[in-house]
Amino acid sequence: MDRDILKQKLKTFKVEVPSWGFSDSGTRFKVFHIPGAARNIFERIDDAAQVNKYTQAVSSVAIHIPWDKVDDWKELKEYAENHGLKIGSVNPNLFQDEDYKFGSLTSLNEEVRQKAIDHVLECVDIMKKVDSKVLSLWLPDGTDYPGQGDFAKRHMLLLESLKKVYDALDEDMTLLIEYKFFEPAFYHMDTSDWGTAYALAKDLGDKAKVIIDLGHHAQGTNIEYIVSILSSRGKLGGFHFNSRKYADDDLTVGSMNLYELFLIFVELNKFFDLSSNLKPALVIDQSAAMKPKIQAMIQSVESLQISYLKSLLVDREALSESQKRNDVVSAEEIIKNAFLTDVRSTLRKMRKEIGINPSPLETFIKSGYEKKIARERG
Amino acid sequence: MDRDILKQKLKTFKVEVPSWGFSDSGTRFKVFHIPGAARNIFERIDDAAQVNKYTQAVSSVAIHIPWDKVDDWKELKEYAENHGLKIGSVNPNLFQDEDYKFGSLTSLNEEVRQKAIDHVLECVDIMKKVDSKVLSLWLPDGTDYPGQGDFAKRHMLLLESLKKVYDALDEDMTLLIEYKFFEPAFYHMDTSDWGTAYALAKDLGDKAKVIIDLGHHAQGTNIEYIVSILSSRGKLGGFHFNSRKYADDDLTVGSMNLYELFLIFVELNKFFDLSSNLKPALVIDQSAAMKPKIQAMIQSVESLQISYLKSLLVDREALSESQKRNDVVSAEEIIKNAFLTDVRSTLRKMRKEIGINPSPLETFIKSGYEKKIARERG
Amino acid sequence: MDRDILKQKLKTFKVEVPSWGFSDSGTRFKVFHIPGAARNIFERIDDAAQVNKYTQAVSSVAIHIPWDKVDDWKELKEYAENHGLKIGSVNPNLFQDEDYKFGSLTSLNEEVRQKAIDHVLECVDIMKKVDSKVLSLWLPDGTDYPGQGDFAKRHMLLLESLKKVYDALDEDMTLLIEYKFFEPAFYHMDTSDWGTAYALAKDLGDKAKVIIDLGHHAQGTNIEYIVSILSSRGKLGGFHFNSRKYADDDLTVGSMNLYELFLIFVELNKFFDLSSNLKPALVIDQSAAMKPKIQAMIQSVESLQISYLKSLLVDREALSESQKRNDVVSAEEIIKNAFLTDVRSTLRKMRKEIGINPSPLETFIKSGYEKKIARERG
Amino acid sequence: MDRDILKQKLKTFKVEVPSWGFSDSGTRFKVFHIPGAARNIFERIDDAAQVNKYTQAVSSVAIHIPWDKVDDWKELKEYAENHGLKIGSVNPNLFQDEDYKFGSLTSLNEEVRQKAIDHVLECVDIMKKVDSKVLSLWLPDGTDYPGQGDFAKRHMLLLESLKKVYDALDEDMTLLIEYKFFEPAFYHMDTSDWGTAYALAKDLGDKAKVIIDLGHHAQGTNIEYIVSILSSRGKLGGFHFNSRKYADDDLTVGSMNLYELFLIFVELNKFFDLSSNLKPALVIDQSAAMKPKIQAMIQSVESLQISYLKSLLVDREALSESQKRNDVVSAEEIIKNAFLTDVRSTLRKMRKEIGINPSPLETFIKSGYEKKIARERG
Repeated sequence: MDRDILKQKLKTFKVEVPSWGFSDSGTRFKVFHIPGAARNIFERIDDAAQVNKYTQAVSSVAIHIPWDKVDDWKELKEYAENHGLKIGSVNPNLFQDEDYKFGSLTSLNEEVRQKAIDHVLECVDIMKKVDSKVLSLWLPDGTDYPGQGDFAKRHMLLLESLKKVYDALDEDMTLLIEYKFFEPAFYHMDTSDWGTAYALAKDLGDKAKVIIDLGHHAQGTNIEYIVSILSSRGKLGGFHFNSRKYADDDLTVGSMNLYELFLIFVELNKFFDLSSNLKPALVIDQSAAMKPKIQAMIQSVESLQISYLKSLLVDREALSESQKRNDVVSAEEIIKNAFLTDVRSTLRKMRKEIGINPSPLETFIKSGYEKKIARERG
Repeated sequence: MDRDILKQKLKTFKVEVPSWGFSDSGTRFKVFHIPGAARNIFERIDDAAQVNKYTQAVSSVAIHIPWDKVDDWKELKEYAENHGLKIGSVNPNLFQDEDYKFGSLTSLNEEVRQKAIDHVLECVDIMKKVDSKVLSLWLPDGTDYPGQGDFAKRHMLLLESLKKVYDALDEDMTLLIEYKFFEPAFYHMDTSDWGTAYALAKDLGDKAKVIIDLGHHAQGTNIEYIVSILSSRGKLGGFHFNSRKYADDDLTVGSMNLYELFLIFVELNKFFDLSSNLKPALVIDQSAAMKPKIQAMIQSVESLQISYLKSLLVDREALSESQKRNDVVSAEEIIKNAFLTDVRSTLRKMRKEIGINPSPLETFIKSGYEKKIARERG
Repeated sequence: MDRDILKQKLKTFKVEVPSWGFSDSGTRFKVFHIPGAARNIFERIDDAAQVNKYTQAVSSVAIHIPWDKVDDWKELKEYAENHGLKIGSVNPNLFQDEDYKFGSLTSLNEEVRQKAIDHVLECVDIMKKVDSKVLSLWLPDGTDYPGQGDFAKRHMLLLESLKKVYDALDEDMTLLIEYKFFEPAFYHMDTSDWGTAYALAKDLGDKAKVIIDLGHHAQGTNIEYIVSILSSRGKLGGFHFNSRKYADDDLTVGSMNLYELFLIFVELNKFFDLSSNLKPALVIDQSAAMKPKIQAMIQSVESLQISYLKSLLVDREALSESQKRNDVVSAEEIIKNAFLTDVRSTLRKMRKEIGINPSPLETFIKSGYEKKIARERG
Repeated sequence: MDRDILKQKLKTFKVEVPSWGFSDSGTRFKVFHIPGAARNIFERIDDAAQVNKYTQAVSSVAIHIPWDKVDDWKELKEYAENHGLKIGSVNPNLFQDEDYKFGSLTSLNEEVRQKAIDHVLECVDIMKKVDSKVLSLWLPDGTDYPGQGDFAKRHMLLLESLKKVYDALDEDMTLLIEYKFFEPAFYHMDTSDWGTAYALAKDLGDKAKVIIDLGHHAQGTNIEYIVSILSSRGKLGGFHFNSRKYADDDLTVGSMNLYELFLIFVELNKFFDLSSNLKPALVIDQSAAMKPKIQAMIQSVESLQISYLKSLLVDREALSESQKRNDVVSAEEIIKNAFLTDVRSTLRKMRKEIGINPSPLETFIKSGYEKKIARERG
């Protein structure tokens, strides 16, 4: 692909960052404090704006309810816009209330179930106020022991609950159903795999789609295959980008297997123009406990840009020809050659053209912003 | 459950054994020869009949085409019936022809694809001749390297191919779609998970269902959950029973985790009366390279009987009450108590009642059959 | 084995319970509160004594420093003894201090490393005061990203640190080195597998051994094999018993694969008389967030008793004969028959003989203790 | 690192190719025939020489006994030398003889065990004749079912057997012990992990080391960590390079996770100068059933060269500084920047300097050699 077209596409390739990615996080053993970690949604937007200032590749900020709850949603929307950002996907929280210990949207207790539904409906209301089009639903429900729950019964209740949520969505809104292999439940998850999420989304209708989190699969799972099948069936709605070596490690994007990330983009390009707005929600979702949060986010944005650029280099016509000939070696070489190409100079040139420093991480670190927030936020 | 009802249910609980389970098998490193291993479908039926003679728990023999191909299908059907058995599911072979190296039902080459479709249609014809109602399709298709194939394109071709097969089925026939995580392909499988198989079965219609092989999942997968979701959606069509510790090890049934097998039966009981004919195809599919074949099959039949019996002991009403109270401990205890109960005396009593020796494995070994076939078959 | 001998062995089969198993726990998403959860080491001993009251199978309580730190260790020791218990293994905490963010015993920072060593040495002091013979060391150290640390350098520092600890041990004390596949670190763990723990223990000397936690392995790992190899090399020092389906799920013992647990006991019996004192430390280590804590502990104790009893039923002489003949089927049948035997009546009889109720879980629940502590502890 | 030094190092960076990598291979389901696949050791050396002709990066050919057995070893040695190659590691075969069904070096049957020992001793003899210094031992021994074997007993027999082999080695010879997680045995492997191999090598002495095969680990295993620990303990003896996504897939090198391969080289560089002769045995071991064999081998050689080159770019001094500061982000950036650099131009320049075409794969394909052997070998 021509370098000018590459740069052009890159200029309009934007991703969403999560508000919660700028706050302290950790494991069940310890949450380590990062000096200056954001304490509320306004500080989170400040930090997201920093990521955008140095990369110009952030479109919006995903919010999490109730962590990011404010009294005045219009004010929040404007605050984001004044920082060059939109409010992106709205993420309900169904895991931090004692009531949800044995299930939320799947609870056998009607009251608890209704409470959970109401919370998600509250999120739909918030979407309307902040002009968000994406409801991103991760369901932590599941069981820890054989016998604890009835899978099919819970599945039916989940579908019922989701229908109520679905019906509240405007026509241009999308419900993203996220699946996860395990954690926090350790025997079964009510949406444990893409099959479940797909079946539910299919039952619900066109406004329901599936969102893939890179850390939510069994070891060995071919994620790019899932991307392809869901996309070809019109049911891929979004991504939670991060990395993992073991379980849902939530490491920064591209830190464990850049080739896999690249292959995912190769598939995405077949179905979407990722430089346009007509694309799945591309959201970073990470918990980089060991790294300064804004640096970690800049790293992840850059990894996505690099993977996207490399994926555009794949000569799809030649690839198709190799596939027709069953020439496995030449097909793989086409893919690998794209991946092996160093696209960082193209990235740097693009940055210069749009008036930002070609080295965002370095520039941000030198800016003194981290010291400032460490001081101000205590 | 009352012991008499237990015994009654056990008497009509029958499973299918695979013709290929009586022949030599092995790994890619070595096929070890078992003296007396069956060399053709008639010898395989002889051996299956031995398993049935000593257990009275075999309904039918799954056949594999072309391994079990004969000139006169009517003769084969009668041969089976004379041995107290039916011909069960018919299994096409799409992996042993050089033409299928790069795909069979998914091949980009129309000629190869048509050849594969024709082979499956041939199997449908055979079904009509031997009065089989189950077409059991395992698709080995997949790719070994990134770039080798186009997932979505292959998926579309697969659906097209399957439609042609589906249309050839009688109304009372079922197409079972088997999925597999990996092997023989090492980068992607065209039907890699239950989600794919379910989506295809849903597209095709009511005659298409999913078959679960216990060795075809990623490590950690909760198989009983899949049983439940597929069953509640009317799409569970059958089982390939075996065991594994690592990959598709194809060990004898129940040899690695009897608790998992029991939990699968607990789920099955919620949707089916396994002592009746209205149930999924319950087929043993193993490759017990280290064990004498008939002994291995008797072990597996017995493991299934034991797991089934134990599963019937679960007090489902009490369980439901515990679940409503969120009493995780008592719910689990109900399950575990059923599992911990020794049902072998019930099994032995049932055997006496139907006139067979209570110790089938021992009785078979003493019968001298193995020496006889070792001598006769060379 | 004769039932009387079985019962005799069972009477002196004792396990250790962890103080931390009686307090609130959870995942990184949420710690759910259990009414009456113990708040300090004295309440934890009270609760452990309840487990012992109803099972008579608890020898001691593992303590965790600083969670269980007291001013007067003599008082604690006597408090335990007055409740019929000893203080068991002492467990240092190297994961909850901000200083240890980038390593404790492996830190490049000498000051931090010395602090960690000092903490472990403090634990050795405590051992002397409470008459504990087992220092049980789980090292959370590791890295999250490639480049973050130098594996070999950290390994060398770890060995150095451990030498200082080792030298402080009395001759009759044991240092148990625990390994873990991943978590809290997500790229590498400094003691990631039994190979590392064994190599370190070998370097250190006879007082150093390895402790196995059932949740700390890669999926598929044959744990009973590790038991056998470590035991035969004189390096198995103890167990952390729990269950898992996915990662380090810390579920109650025996809840996922009772057969595996049984097979572990079969191996242990070859090297140790578990009914005596000359055995590895057998410690329950679980985090049963969804279950009332004392009930969960009683379940786990009972699972261990059942597995131990079943393992004693294995006819080792016959097994050895089958192995010599390469009779895989009969060898497996010997193992499976032991496992399939219902030993609960033997367990119940033993309980009657020693004067406790044959149904400890039920009896405990009915005792009203849980309501009492919920009220008293708030 | 200076480009000239890079090229210099690259010029003397040589790997070993396996004789068996030029012959037909497959899965347990099917061995697909590649036209022109080598039929004997002389044809295999011819093909290896082709790989070397176009890459100049092959030092030697690993041989497998008895597959590569010849009457006149001197003739074979000269044949290799005339083709610019040495005979590399000698690999005994302990898996294709009926006698070894239940074990070879671990067999309870003394006769079988002696036969296996004799076979390995025969390989030591061959080493002396072909001037090979590396005995590369992969042990397929293991069991399929609980009860089948006694782990500790087999371990002891294995050590005894290995001692006899060890004693027959000249002082400058190395015994490499290979471990494997599973396959062909499906319950336990007698050398299942690096811990076992290390313990055995330690018991044996300095001439015994461990060889790592990239496909022989549980999912998620951090292999570069094992490289580091074994190297720092003087026990890393060699590599079998290949790729896998699932199990021991034996795909071409670098086809699944190039970053992991690079990180392995980063570790190796800390302990060895891979451009010298004083290094572990670097052997390709693949079974590229879907690819023309020589093309596949050229791809793998190139992947190793690229990974090695990238690994040399790591600024180890700066990395060490970042590690000291606990600056996780800058440490990772140093690593990632090396990986993201396109080293292919350096590789091409080096090739021109030593007088070969910069595009070996393309040049080989155009050479017509494949057509020639397809014709000649039938």
